[in-house]
Amino acid sequence: ASSKLPNEKDSIFTIMGHLARKYNATDLSQGFPNFKTDAQLTHLVSEAMARGYNQYAPMAGVIELREEISKKINHLYHKKYDPETEITVTVGATQAIYSAITAFVQKDDEVIVFKPAYDSYEPTIKLNGGYPVLVQLEGDNFKVNWEEVENKISRRTRMVIINSPHNPTGTLFTREDMLKLEHLLKDTNIILLSDEVYEHLIFDGQEHQSAALYPSLGERAVICASFGKTFHNTGWKTGYCVAPKALMAEIRKVHQFAVFCVNHPVQQAFAAYLKSPDHYLELGRFYEKKRDFFLELIKNSKFKGSPAAGTYFQLLNFSEITDESAVDFSQRLVKDFKLASIPVSVFNIDQKDNKQLRFCFAKTDETLEKAAMILNKF
Amino acid sequence: ASSKLPNEKDSIFTIMGHLARKYNATDLSQGFPNFKTDAQLTHLVSEAMARGYNQYAPMAGVIELREEISKKINHLYHKKYDPETEITVTVGATQAIYSAITAFVQKDDEVIVFKPAYDSYEPTIKLNGGYPVLVQLEGDNFKVNWEEVENKISRRTRMVIINSPHNPTGTLFTREDMLKLEHLLKDTNIILLSDEVYEHLIFDGQEHQSAALYPSLGERAVICASFGKTFHNTGWKTGYCVAPKALMAEIRKVHQFAVFCVNHPVQQAFAAYLKSPDHYLELGRFYEKKRDFFLELIKNSKFKGSPAAGTYFQLLNFSEITDESAVDFSQRLVKDFKLASIPVSVFNIDQKDNKQLRFCFAKTDETLEKAAMILNKF
Ligand SMILES: CSCCC(=O)C(=O)O
Ligand SMILES: CSCCC(=O)C(=O)O
Repeated sequence: ASSKLPNEKDSIFTIMGHLARKYNATDLSQGFPNFKTDAQLTHLVSEAMARGYNQYAPMAGVIELREEISKKINHLYHKKYDPETEITVTVGATQAIYSAITAFVQKDDEVIVFKPAYDSYEPTIKLNGGYPVLVQLEGDNFKVNWEEVENKISRRTRMVIINSPHNPTGTLFTREDMLKLEHLLKDTNIILLSDEVYEHLIFDGQEHQSAALYPSLGERAVICASFGKTFHNTGWKTGYCVAPKALMAEIRKVHQFAVFCVNHPVQQAFAAYLKSPDHYLELGRFYEKKRDFFLELIKNSKFKGSPAAGTYFQLLNFSEITDESAVDFSQRLVKDFKLASIPVSVFNIDQKDNKQLRFCFAKTDETLEKAAMILNKF
Repeated sequence: ASSKLPNEKDSIFTIMGHLARKYNATDLSQGFPNFKTDAQLTHLVSEAMARGYNQYAPMAGVIELREEISKKINHLYHKKYDPETEITVTVGATQAIYSAITAFVQKDDEVIVFKPAYDSYEPTIKLNGGYPVLVQLEGDNFKVNWEEVENKISRRTRMVIINSPHNPTGTLFTREDMLKLEHLLKDTNIILLSDEVYEHLIFDGQEHQSAALYPSLGERAVICASFGKTFHNTGWKTGYCVAPKALMAEIRKVHQFAVFCVNHPVQQAFAAYLKSPDHYLELGRFYEKKRDFFLELIKNSKFKGSPAAGTYFQLLNFSEITDESAVDFSQRLVKDFKLASIPVSVFNIDQKDNKQLRFCFAKTDETLEKAAMILNKF
């Protein structure tokens, strides 16, 4: 019998992570912080273990944590989700995305995916017998061509996946984008999967356009979020999704059999920690400073890019330096210059190459200085 | 569009867990220990967090942990698995089972499942468009009718799932069973999924019949195992699977997109802890004492059953007490007598009712005494 995903190779994150370790490089490739998780939070995990929270958590998640998530969303986006039936704690946002796609996408269903895109969407769609219908984001600001989307929506469209703030480009959907989307999905039963893992990482006074803010989107939306991205502990593998009850019931069927539940002491810790909204409300400002620090350091270099509007990724164009492909240049950069990045082309349709590399700036100032020193050599 | 799993309701574990909490009952339903995880192990997790292991682990797992798993399997079952390519750390055995089924089962494939069975196998097969082909275990000792299996294997059989020590019955596959299985699978390309999560919980001097012990099974086997079951921390959600390289490559494609990786500090802790094989070699004796303690306490009761040969589950027949169905009686037991158990009938073909309840004896002596006091009232 044949492979269900014959074309999948090691992901760019695995490859670049390996190279970064092999060449002892400064690693701005995979998206994770290299500074410490809040000691209060690790203390809360240790405390939860000491208090005996070491056995199965409830399948949908620790109820106190779901209540905190509900409060947070209501506070930020003025939408109420019932902790009992509309919120599920997942093994990172990746498992939330996976479970939502798997719950709803059936053989021959189509799913609209904007490219460049995070690398889990398409294989998960294919694993379920569906077809990714790709829409390339356009121009330097990676705008959606909504007319193209309208043309690509068909009677077989089961789902549209959006991701704002956007990985890998660092751009945001605007209010106008959301209204266009509302208009297109109105009177359909298309499900919206909204990957909002960088919801708190928004800069320059802009606002996060959560699907929860738009009633006609909220009623069809599965919103996926991440504690790892928010609280600097991607390795704790905890996130969540929210959706209207009828949709959530289907997602939980997948969740239950895919993982059953999520690490219990970590859930207890987040339940306590989320009681202080300051822990995430400061985050945008924190990463905005990181971005500015990094861009200031390289402002005279030959690497060019508009400042990221959100996420902790900065795209830089290197076409003033070389004609090499992004893949080749990123390999040379890690091997010969000991700086790891992600070539954006691997996320584009047909690996279209805009000569861009993605740099993760969720790093200590020292690490960013090291990286900048290397970039300034060119 | 319709549900992909229209018939799934809340699982018996969720239902019984709720009832146990609601009626403040002694809980011998879901399979987890109510005593403490080794303090050394929780200390190792805290230490890993303090040492900064809070970001993504490698996709397939922390390499030191995979090396310890490889050593353990070689030590116990004399088979070598390459840590690089043949071992993957998973979010509990549930995710290992899920990923293996999802990697290999395609539309219209058949999978042989022995009943009663752990409740994740069948829905996962169906989610992938496959058909569970059910074989009821027979008689008081739940033996396999291998002739029936032979008759049910067809050209569409993609996988056979076995589980020894067996949940929920507490029985074991014998060497003869394994030889029959070898014979049936020889010259086919059927994959064997061997759920061995209770590998260390074997009593009365018997030996675990791991698929790894049988070369012609090993070459087609995905073996799934659990640290939660072994080290008293089901809530840490860590397990693993091993398989020959070509099979593991397919499993990892699912694993990568379903969860990407597993909690990092917990993996670091297990890597250190596994260096002392005593931590699992004592386990069979420990649970054998628990079983004997529990059975001694109820030996004059009207609940009857052969002692479990493995796992931490004891089946008890209640037909001397009442004609009620197992489901009804288990509900009465939790509501009126404050003792939670699992009705075995829910795991049988057509919910066939042998008037049996499953009791988890992974509990403190005090809890077992409380449970016995209730059972002795009848
Ligand atoms: C789960 S690996 C990818 C991490 C990430 O979000 C990124 O680097 O884009
Ligand atoms: C993942 S919930 C079920 C736990 C268990 O293995 C059982 O009780 O049978």
